Amino acid sequence: MTGKLITIEGGEGAGKSTVIAGLRAAIEARGHEVVLTREPGGTPVGEAIRALLLDPAHALAAETELLLMFAARAQLVRELIRPALARGAFVVSDRFTDASFAYQGGGRGIDMGRIAELERWAAGIKPDLTFLLDLGVEQGLARARSRGGEPDRIEREHNGFFERVRAAYRARAAAEPQRFRVIDAGQPAEAVVAAVRAALEDWMETLA
Amino acid sequence: MTGKLITIEGGEGAGKSTVIAGLRAAIEARGHEVVLTREPGGTPVGEAIRALLLDPAHALAAETELLLMFAARAQLVRELIRPALARGAFVVSDRFTDASFAYQGGGRGIDMGRIAELERWAAGIKPDLTFLLDLGVEQGLARARSRGGEPDRIEREHNGFFERVRAAYRARAAAEPQRFRVIDAGQPAEAVVAAVRAALEDWMETLA
Ligand SMILES: Nc1ncnc2c1ncn2[C@@H]1O[C@H](COP(=O)(O)OP(=O)(O)OP(=O)(O)O)[C@@H](O)[C@H]1O
Ligand SMILES: Nc1ncnc2c1ncn2[C@@H]1O[C@H](COP(=O)(O)OP(=O)(O)OP(=O)(O)O)[C@@H](O)[C@H]1O
Ligand SMILES: [Mg+2]
Ligand SMILES: [Mg+2]
Repeated sequence: MTGKLITIEGGEGAGKSTVIAGLRAAIEARGHEVVLTREPGGTPVGEAIRALLLDPAHALAAETELLLMFAARAQLVRELIRPALARGAFVVSDRFTDASFAYQGGGRGIDMGRIAELERWAAGIKPDLTFLLDLGVEQGLARARSRGGEPDRIEREHNGFFERVRAAYRARAAAEPQRFRVIDAGQPAEAVVAAVRAALEDWMETLA
Repeated sequence: MTGKLITIEGGEGAGKSTVIAGLRAAIEARGHEVVLTREPGGTPVGEAIRALLLDPAHALAAETELLLMFAARAQLVRELIRPALARGAFVVSDRFTDASFAYQGGGRGIDMGRIAELERWAAGIKPDLTFLLDLGVEQGLARARSRGGEPDRIEREHNGFFERVRAAYRARAAAEPQRFRVIDAGQPAEAVVAAVRAALEDWMETLA
């Protein structure tokens, strides 16, 4: 059997990291190996690339940002995701290529066709199932800020940027309803986790 | 007046860095501002990317390597090269996109059409004049090693890799004879520098 790639998407502070622990338990309960990862990052070079991307000291051109995202992703697919899928594991990734369509496409205005081209050869793989945690921009930023610490290079963007990110995510979900599950992330955390688990369990039924 | 982009290409130890000081003097003697840079690198984020690329600890996929090269290049063009050309400067770069065709295309076997696609949108600029310092692989590696120090991630490749790099460089020069000047880098350093200067001065005559 070959494994599955499940991705969690959403804006800043939507609750992606919060949801992932619940996902792991639900998949393991069915006897599958679970591999958790995140983007950008997930490999040694990918985590170094993440540090460059989030460093507020760098004034990156949009093209540089896109290429760094895909450099980390190309490595993640080859070093971690493909080997895990080959042995039948479920890979759960905190963000994946949809985030490039949303942030570098919607947010920065890079042509979506160009990103799709990179998706084909640099990523070379699409998720089997994607959760979009959908939340108002102000609410998400308030949650992210409540964690404290200095905002990173992306978190310093203005609200218009994050509104474009949200719109691009929703457009992608509308275009691929069989892959996406859109979850109302404005609910209390337990309700969000429960909604994600229920959708995951329904989907896993269809695999059997 | 808008400036010119001049690039120096060649394998390991061909003498690129050695030649560049001579080029600067010849261009400045004609009253032009000269901006020297190098690839990968030349900007703060580009130098950080260079460190990732050359670190022998990273086992990079070919796609990751290509995307990191173009990430550094996209930033270099936008942050340094275009502004310098706009004010009329001559930019002299120690390697540029031809190196990706030679190393990631010839050396690693990535499709040349894919690299040409990245050249169009991520670099978006081609050199006005390119010097290819052509030298036998063994001779170049012996020179590079004579500088001492630990070999970087690329310098650890086998001779077959560097033979493919050299062949790809020569094929590019043959395909674009009006842009390339192929210099026999097996001559003594003073003769190489003199040949480069003479070819540069001939070319500058054609600009006037
Ligand atoms: N449904 C929720 N209701 C209220 N608070 C929540 C909810 N989900 C998460 N939080 C809290 O909001 C903050 C952000 O959550 P979390 O880190 O899971 O979001 P994220 O999407 O991973 O953010 P980032 O994009 O920064 O990685 C955390 O402090 C978390 O405890
Ligand atoms: N024509 C030459 N004849 C003999 N030695 C040379 C010649 N040109 C350069 N060298 C010496 O060879 C070594 C490599 O030269 P240099 O650093 O200029 O090459 P490079 O092409 O910049 O190398 P790299 O690809 O590692 O950057 C240096 O020690 C340099 O002094
Ligand atoms: Mg998170
Ligand atoms: Mg050099």
